[in-house]
Amino acid sequence: MTEAGPLKIKLQLYCDGEIAMGPGKADLLEAIGRFGSISAAGRALGMSYRRAWLLVDTMNRCWRSPLVETSPGSTHGGGARLSEQGESVLALYRALQARLDRAADAEELAALGAALLPAPRASQKG
Amino acid sequence: MTEAGPLKIKLQLYCDGEIAMGPGKADLLEAIGRFGSISAAGRALGMSYRRAWLLVDTMNRCWRSPLVETSPGSTHGGGARLSEQGESVLALYRALQARLDRAADAEELAALGAALLPAPRASQKG
Repeated sequence: MTEAGPLKIKLQLYCDGEIAMGPGKADLLEAIGRFGSISAAGRALGMSYRRAWLLVDTMNRCWRSPLVETSPGSTHGGGARLSEQGESVLALYRALQARLDRAADAEELAALGAALLPAPRASQKG
Repeated sequence: MTEAGPLKIKLQLYCDGEIAMGPGKADLLEAIGRFGSISAAGRALGMSYRRAWLLVDTMNRCWRSPLVETSPGSTHGGGARLSEQGESVLALYRALQARLDRAADAEELAALGAALLPAPRASQKG
């Protein structure tokens, strides 16, 4: 997810019916790289361990090789790190986001921004 | 929302905390233009009248002038059409989508597509 003034651009990569990469998964990968554990990364993002684990499980099933490597035998407190494929997919996803941010800085966005109110009017009905 | 192989790009335009335009609202605008009524447009998109009305209400509060004009006195069955601003915002949004689709057709997407499996592997845990 990227913010450029009023615009948010959300990129999702699908593997059949599952989301292999998206804003939340990319943030989680980044946090796993920083904290070296799935639980610490989830905590930093305000995510339950179960939710973080499920996102990692999906990522690890959707790409040619798993994006996150965990220490054998570890459970909640165990160590985790990005695989080479994980580093590569994260960097490519961020680069694609940056490319689309630059592409969005165009006449259409300027015109849309000029037509948007700074805040919504009140609703007419309850 | 746009699909280019495994990639979906979702554009959202925010007006303060509210989503002034996004994939669902753009589809609804398009359907209102086609069917000439909010209820028929909602039905065509599998949306309740209340849901369609709320989306129109938000759109009508977020832009300098309302995007949808309704016939005075009409309720459920009443007529609705896009205002000049509605036509313009929809066209700009679609043009920005098309621009980002073209921009996404880049080396990063090719590399991501090559690393994606055609379908996910089975989960290791339940």
